[in-house]
Amino acid sequence: MNEHALLHIPDSRYCFATGERELTIRLRMAKEDEDCRVSLVYACKYDFGNRQETVPMKLRCMDRLYRYYEIEMELTDVRLAYIFQIEEQGKSYYFSEDGLTEEYCFAEGFYNFFQMAYINANDVMPVVDWMRDAVFYQIFVERFCRGNMEKDDSYINMAWDGIPTPKSFAGGDLRGIIDRIGYLKELGVTAIYLTPVFTSDSNHKYDTKDYFMVDPRFGSNEDLVELVRKAHEAGMKVLLDAVFNHCSMYLEQFQDVMRRGTDSEYYDWFLIDGDFPEPEKMNYECFAGCNYMPKLNTANREVQSFLLDIAGYWMTEADIDGWRLDVSDEVSHDFWRRFRKAVKQQKPDAVIIGENWHDAYPYLRGDQYDSIMNYAFTKACLDYFARGKFDAEQMADKLNGNYMRNMRQVNDMMLNLLDSHDTHRFFTEVGCDKDILLAALALEMVYPGAPCIYYGTEVCMEGGFDPDSRRGFPWDETGWDIHVGRQFRQMTKMRSRDTIRLGEVRITACHGLLTVSRSYDRRMLTLYINMTDRNVVLPLTDILLANRYEDGALETHGYVIAEREVEA
Amino acid sequence: MNEHALLHIPDSRYCFATGERELTIRLRMAKEDEDCRVSLVYACKYDFGNRQETVPMKLRCMDRLYRYYEIEMELTDVRLAYIFQIEEQGKSYYFSEDGLTEEYCFAEGFYNFFQMAYINANDVMPVVDWMRDAVFYQIFVERFCRGNMEKDDSYINMAWDGIPTPKSFAGGDLRGIIDRIGYLKELGVTAIYLTPVFTSDSNHKYDTKDYFMVDPRFGSNEDLVELVRKAHEAGMKVLLDAVFNHCSMYLEQFQDVMRRGTDSEYYDWFLIDGDFPEPEKMNYECFAGCNYMPKLNTANREVQSFLLDIAGYWMTEADIDGWRLDVSDEVSHDFWRRFRKAVKQQKPDAVIIGENWHDAYPYLRGDQYDSIMNYAFTKACLDYFARGKFDAEQMADKLNGNYMRNMRQVNDMMLNLLDSHDTHRFFTEVGCDKDILLAALALEMVYPGAPCIYYGTEVCMEGGFDPDSRRGFPWDETGWDIHVGRQFRQMTKMRSRDTIRLGEVRITACHGLLTVSRSYDRRMLTLYINMTDRNVVLPLTDILLANRYEDGALETHGYVIAEREVEA
Repeated sequence: MNEHALLHIPDSRYCFATGERELTIRLRMAKEDEDCRVSLVYACKYDFGNRQETVPMKLRCMDRLYRYYEIEMELTDVRLAYIFQIEEQGKSYYFSEDGLTEEYCFAEGFYNFFQMAYINANDVMPVVDWMRDAVFYQIFVERFCRGNMEKDDSYINMAWDGIPTPKSFAGGDLRGIIDRIGYLKELGVTAIYLTPVFTSDSNHKYDTKDYFMVDPRFGSNEDLVELVRKAHEAGMKVLLDAVFNHCSMYLEQFQDVMRRGTDSEYYDWFLIDGDFPEPEKMNYECFAGCNYMPKLNTANREVQSFLLDIAGYWMTEADIDGWRLDVSDEVSHDFWRRFRKAVKQQKPDAVIIGENWHDAYPYLRGDQYDSIMNYAFTKACLDYFARGKFDAEQMADKLNGNYMRNMRQVNDMMLNLLDSHDTHRFFTEVGCDKDILLAALALEMVYPGAPCIYYGTEVCMEGGFDPDSRRGFPWDETGWDIHVGRQFRQMTKMRSRDTIRLGEVRITACHGLLTVSRSYDRRMLTLYINMTDRNVVLPLTDILLANRYEDGALETHGYVIAEREVEA
Repeated sequence: MNEHALLHIPDSRYCFATGERELTIRLRMAKEDEDCRVSLVYACKYDFGNRQETVPMKLRCMDRLYRYYEIEMELTDVRLAYIFQIEEQGKSYYFSEDGLTEEYCFAEGFYNFFQMAYINANDVMPVVDWMRDAVFYQIFVERFCRGNMEKDDSYINMAWDGIPTPKSFAGGDLRGIIDRIGYLKELGVTAIYLTPVFTSDSNHKYDTKDYFMVDPRFGSNEDLVELVRKAHEAGMKVLLDAVFNHCSMYLEQFQDVMRRGTDSEYYDWFLIDGDFPEPEKMNYECFAGCNYMPKLNTANREVQSFLLDIAGYWMTEADIDGWRLDVSDEVSHDFWRRFRKAVKQQKPDAVIIGENWHDAYPYLRGDQYDSIMNYAFTKACLDYFARGKFDAEQMADKLNGNYMRNMRQVNDMMLNLLDSHDTHRFFTEVGCDKDILLAALALEMVYPGAPCIYYGTEVCMEGGFDPDSRRGFPWDETGWDIHVGRQFRQMTKMRSRDTIRLGEVRITACHGLLTVSRSYDRRMLTLYINMTDRNVVLPLTDILLANRYEDGALETHGYVIAEREVEA
């Protein structure tokens, strides 16, 4: 046994409550240790010295190096002591806080058992239920649709179908989105995520000048209220972008500090090295080295309260359904804890989604965000679908490893994306291959969590890196691919199936195919994807949806989704 | 290389800020991979794609299975991206969020580098400075000293020097402690931790009836105020025991629920299965199955506020210096977060010490407690000093492994104990061997964190498990061991040395001796302990303190502490 590979961390992603009496426990072992039998030995912590129960654990998944065992428990007493028993070639080992041993002294277990000391209700992370079958649609507002044709459009300096530069304005606005709610509804979208809409000089509006006012070029506060109301009427949620890490240098409070320096009551709202901020010297903390985006000091309680007021204001005024958090990993944990409390108190089923490109577990323990934009999923999809760096097995390994980074609840609320305003368009990355795009979309739709479709993906929009990925949406339907559009709609419809809403996921590779199944209540939905260069014979019945699946064979770049009854 | 052994977790005990610009990064590898050279490759996260710095990491320590590399960095830009470079036999590998690879694409590092995205000041855990050289003394109040000879003592049912039963009362009180402040001061004690003092029917008082009133048998609220004032005058801190997991069934609020059931406004303060709590049926959550100690529902905000009021009240009224948290692992994280905020706001250098017997990292991230009662240290000392289960190397491995469980700040505030009211007395565990006791005390005094001496250890009190470990303190000096007492005082004096206050620790085994050194500013203090059954030649100069060290040889069960100048 590779003892070094053993990993368990109590009260973490390796042991977490999913309900007031439900607990999931995971144990990591080396992948090659396939002949081991793993059991959980447990009891109420006050009885553990006297008697214990033993129950086998199931192999949950594997990645490149490790195999993960898991057990879901329904507890009567929520004070749990446990260790692991591992049998290998007739020999029994114990794994406790003291590591792997051949003997274990239960009488002194109170020194070294693992434990979930108690499940307190308010430490349990709930799932925002509507996330389970959500289909998100990310709108870069300046480029989705222009609705208001009456507005002063002298600022517009780009043809709608032109190639954007960093300073382009094409005229997209909230009215345009309102006008297209029917279109989105018909696509199967259930949640809209808008990039920033508050007053700002830029086209992207990540440099906010006034957090309480919709940018006039995008419309009015009333337009935003109307947009959310009409989205709600159409059964869609709306998320706004919380740009709380930094602001515009033209924010009133920063301008006050510019004028009055240390005399300003807002001096400590920013992180300034000197008596005055001097943009040309960059003597204050900024976002990404941009002097026009000074960083807010989110360790400061006044700043925290200011930002909480903004969040509360828009949840009250516009009744929005959650926040996507810009550059959230650079903002203090302490602030996000207050933020979560405030948001969830106001609207318990509002969702909070961080923009962390990396393993974000420190933010995803239940006290800060619900989930993140799943860029690890994006990267895996690039390596598998676009770059040929992964075969199906490597892709399964990668997805499984990523999945094990988080508690199940977080995985169930992950925002899975192929691309965004901060990446190349995925369609461009796959060489504009529509079959590959459809296969990747199928994966995104079947994967636990919510897919987030970057505007225009459904009509095969192209684009390289920012600003090229932010082109105007081509509203002329004659250029749209009918097959892609139809498949897209069929996929979004599938999202409400119980297997997808609630099913346990299993990701493997088989005959070169990536295989993702979701099992729930005696039914199993399975997606097969063929990224090999040959067709694979795959006789299936009960097919829900497919592309390039003919006569029982899955062709190169094809996918097929089937759902069938399984044994209990 | 044992790839499975590699472990790094960003924004955790493996990567933590110790100041607003200071960061410590750790990497775990297999112990056997001794021929690897480990470096950190890093840059500001926004520059990482273009250029990086590379700096070697130092081997920090080893335990049974792993070696831990560490680097302490002083950052100019606090947005750090990093990966590890590992060279083995002329070949170079990279370790990132994507695991170990031979190649690494820096241009796409934003997908998979490790990061400390930003150090926000309020997420940094500070060290409570007075903890660095503290010597704690734990007093079980009922048995330390009786001061008030006038009180109604009809409740006393045990001779002061008798053997206690669970229901014994010997008459100890706060006046007795006040009377002995001079004694404690002269011992070198700098902080007193009192087991519970609030109104309760039991001798241990862990079943609180009235949190706002000192138990009349112990004295009055004024006595407590006087005790703390006089301790402060003598340069000593005072910690009280926060019994917030549960209370007495005679607490007014529980009694109200007993009477009025679901009609009581306090019904949700407890966790009751039924309309009324029924002690004989145990239909409510209790501590450790004791129906007279109902569990408080610390997920309930009203309960939280009630408990915060108690904490605030005693910090205001008596000016205490912190709290030891009883059964803290069964109380909600959410509550401890509020508790920390409230306590630290009122008194920033108050210390918060949990009673978690296990790896308590989820509570020790800077948002909940400062440290815990270090029972893992206790267990290691039992295995090494009392039971012969560990030789010096195994002891070093164990202490190193435990040390790596936490951030440095937490280790610097650990409450290291050999015993407590909840264990056998350590002196009894080591077969009443005074030399072993002294060697163990030497370790406790030199180890990072603060030693916590259970009352009477300095006079070699004996005792088995509760209630035997709670005997009356033998105030007749004629029975005291003069050598042990003198050594004890010399050790406590040593605590204020810079090497012990601030020194980096290194724990190894050498020639069968356990060796613990603390290095600071060109000086190194080293403790050697000999638990082998032979004398070991160990020529030393600059000796600070020793027992059983003769003619350059450290005898069985002896220890020696020396401090010398070292090269920069």
